[in-house]
Amino acid sequence: MYAEARTLYERSGFGGRVGFGKRPAIVVIDMARSWLDDASPQGSSGLLPVLENTVKLIDVARAAGHPVFFSTMAFEKSDVAGPYGRKMLHLSQLGSLDAGSSMVELDPRLNRRADEPLLVKPRASVFWGTPFDSYLVGGGIDTLIITGCSTSGCVRATAESAHNVNLHTIVVREAVGDRSPLAHEVNLTDIDLRYADVMSLEDVSSYLKETPAQ
Amino acid sequence: MYAEARTLYERSGFGGRVGFGKRPAIVVIDMARSWLDDASPQGSSGLLPVLENTVKLIDVARAAGHPVFFSTMAFEKSDVAGPYGRKMLHLSQLGSLDAGSSMVELDPRLNRRADEPLLVKPRASVFWGTPFDSYLVGGGIDTLIITGCSTSGCVRATAESAHNVNLHTIVVREAVGDRSPLAHEVNLTDIDLRYADVMSLEDVSSYLKETPAQ
Amino acid sequence: MYAEARTLYERSGFGGRVGFGKRPAIVVIDMARSWLDDASPQGSSGLLPVLENTVKLIDVARAAGHPVFFSTMAFEKSDVAGPYGRKMLHLSQLGSLDAGSSMVELDPRLNRRADEPLLVKPRASVFWGTPFDSYLVGGGIDTLIITGCSTSGCVRATAESAHNVNLHTIVVREAVGDRSPLAHEVNLTDIDLRYADVMSLEDVSSYLKETPAQ
Amino acid sequence: MYAEARTLYERSGFGGRVGFGKRPAIVVIDMARSWLDDASPQGSSGLLPVLENTVKLIDVARAAGHPVFFSTMAFEKSDVAGPYGRKMLHLSQLGSLDAGSSMVELDPRLNRRADEPLLVKPRASVFWGTPFDSYLVGGGIDTLIITGCSTSGCVRATAESAHNVNLHTIVVREAVGDRSPLAHEVNLTDIDLRYADVMSLEDVSSYLKETPAQ
Repeated sequence: MYAEARTLYERSGFGGRVGFGKRPAIVVIDMARSWLDDASPQGSSGLLPVLENTVKLIDVARAAGHPVFFSTMAFEKSDVAGPYGRKMLHLSQLGSLDAGSSMVELDPRLNRRADEPLLVKPRASVFWGTPFDSYLVGGGIDTLIITGCSTSGCVRATAESAHNVNLHTIVVREAVGDRSPLAHEVNLTDIDLRYADVMSLEDVSSYLKETPAQ
Repeated sequence: MYAEARTLYERSGFGGRVGFGKRPAIVVIDMARSWLDDASPQGSSGLLPVLENTVKLIDVARAAGHPVFFSTMAFEKSDVAGPYGRKMLHLSQLGSLDAGSSMVELDPRLNRRADEPLLVKPRASVFWGTPFDSYLVGGGIDTLIITGCSTSGCVRATAESAHNVNLHTIVVREAVGDRSPLAHEVNLTDIDLRYADVMSLEDVSSYLKETPAQ
Repeated sequence: MYAEARTLYERSGFGGRVGFGKRPAIVVIDMARSWLDDASPQGSSGLLPVLENTVKLIDVARAAGHPVFFSTMAFEKSDVAGPYGRKMLHLSQLGSLDAGSSMVELDPRLNRRADEPLLVKPRASVFWGTPFDSYLVGGGIDTLIITGCSTSGCVRATAESAHNVNLHTIVVREAVGDRSPLAHEVNLTDIDLRYADVMSLEDVSSYLKETPAQ
Repeated sequence: MYAEARTLYERSGFGGRVGFGKRPAIVVIDMARSWLDDASPQGSSGLLPVLENTVKLIDVARAAGHPVFFSTMAFEKSDVAGPYGRKMLHLSQLGSLDAGSSMVELDPRLNRRADEPLLVKPRASVFWGTPFDSYLVGGGIDTLIITGCSTSGCVRATAESAHNVNLHTIVVREAVGDRSPLAHEVNLTDIDLRYADVMSLEDVSSYLKETPAQ
């Protein structure tokens, strides 16, 4: 239903292919209980396939020796006192991401290793308000592969940030999701036109297997 | 058609109202010929009402003594050599925003004054790669009112950045636009749910008139 | 001994006075055991007067209703794997700021309150890799008063960052310090010429008392 | 005269060697007339050897195929209205870096090529308020070699920023300078202890010659 937008944008010169680079890393956005568990005000168990596909992809990455990063969010009361908390009522009123709560912990199926950094990000993009760029530069990363949720929020914002610094930015279609299927689809199109190549799990897995670790 | 997304997001606690603060500024995003002129590969004269409504609003702001900022974009060949230029073919191949071209100049109807800063921004958000935040902090601004184009690109990215730093962020419905009406509508909804209050030209004009200048 | 530098810089137009603004906040840089305790490889009990003067100042600020922020640093092994850790051997080899260690905790004499944010900063400036700017914008802060250590490192870097965004930046002479008295003196001069007004504890205390809370 | 500081800092674990990486770039900071010409209020012809050594180094870099970047500064009146301009009186009152003036142009002996980006930076660090990081990431750069002026200002600030993002950061002793020889010496020491390896022109030239271009 969003084909009109794609047509108009491609005609204007958006939507080129950035392609893969030579040194990839994966970032898994916000695969914590607060987003995956229906008991959370913002949670949706409909995202479980996203988790499963993410697990498949990071297993491939680990086997091939590519770095994996994770993010979550967690807030104290004083962190959500201003306009940010007024827009995000789940944070400021519903306590869905309270620091110290089990809701902000990564899903155990991700099996995070001690040498895989966890970024506690204060905003949608994992680059904003964190030292994430320093890990990428320090590791010589030129390709950022994004999985997790939500497509219309933290995934899109992270893809924009990665694109801004000239990373080859890839979003894995089957490994990102959104509580709204409609928001998922239109934002995936915007992402593909503006910020990142949206690619299949299969193609990204093949690339990770074929690419030598540093 | 995007009502599903709104319903699901509001149920999850998104979409609170940030409201107005006490010290507003307006930023006019990319109202230059390259976006407004059909002769440009990325241009659309369908955006002329956006320009007209922006002019109305900045006239109100000037009369009330509130600061006005403008942005445009302009690139040398070496600026678009990497993944950024590979995604944005209008920049790297079509030359739609070449530095020095008349296409990157602000529309003369905006009548920019010498004391109104012009930010030449390298990416979608006017905050990214520019000193824009220093003008806002230096001016004691707590409310950023956004007009211009495109809703699905630079307007949304700027709203996200402003929200990130806890500005009261307001997007003026009749004074923003997009080459795709569909992209305009869905992104306006995402913006309203996540980053900024989307408000009418009339309500924002009233606020600007009633609010004392510093 | 650094008078030559001051003379040459003032003759060139550096060293103007920024003065106080209307809405101050205090940030206390790195007054944790790792910096204050001789048992730490980077610690110096010579900084205790800095702590005592900081406590005096934040008591004044609290009584007057002005916000107070704190910083510390803490690292996992994976955080110091690149060039950053190669330069900072106390972090990467001596473990002086290991996450979870009591060494990274704020000195209890600061008596931090639950509504006073603690920034765990990854680099010298408290603005870098943290959401610190969002607290200042959200609180309408226009004046940042800096105390803590080290003058030649985190204090100077924070003063530079605050100056960059057009905050009225003030460094409190008796409430900042350095493990090297010489580094303290020359950096205090550089700070005063380039980034912030260096002022006395007495003058800053008077200002805080006289300035109405928001 | 600053040996005390070095001793105390090295004993605390500062001053490790970061060494060279594999993909270098050079950034030449502010070698424009306003800094090099005694006719400018902030200028000093004493910096001419810095220019000459910079020219030698960039000739080596060009011959070896390594990228070269340049910076300058330039301001409109509205850019220096707040605390930044109040500290920097040469900018706000003496007009030493007025946009459009010949004073802000690079020295012609640098012979900048069309494909060598020029960053017009608004603050001391070339990373701040510019898209500089996107050029480095897009070019796969892991080593930043810094030349130009002033050691106690823009050189130090740029070294700190580069260190923050985990670049191998190198400052070339004979190719950086300061209007104050004393400020030069103490800041070079601080830089070496905290942010970058300070190395000789000869050693850096050898490295550039021996390192294959990408």
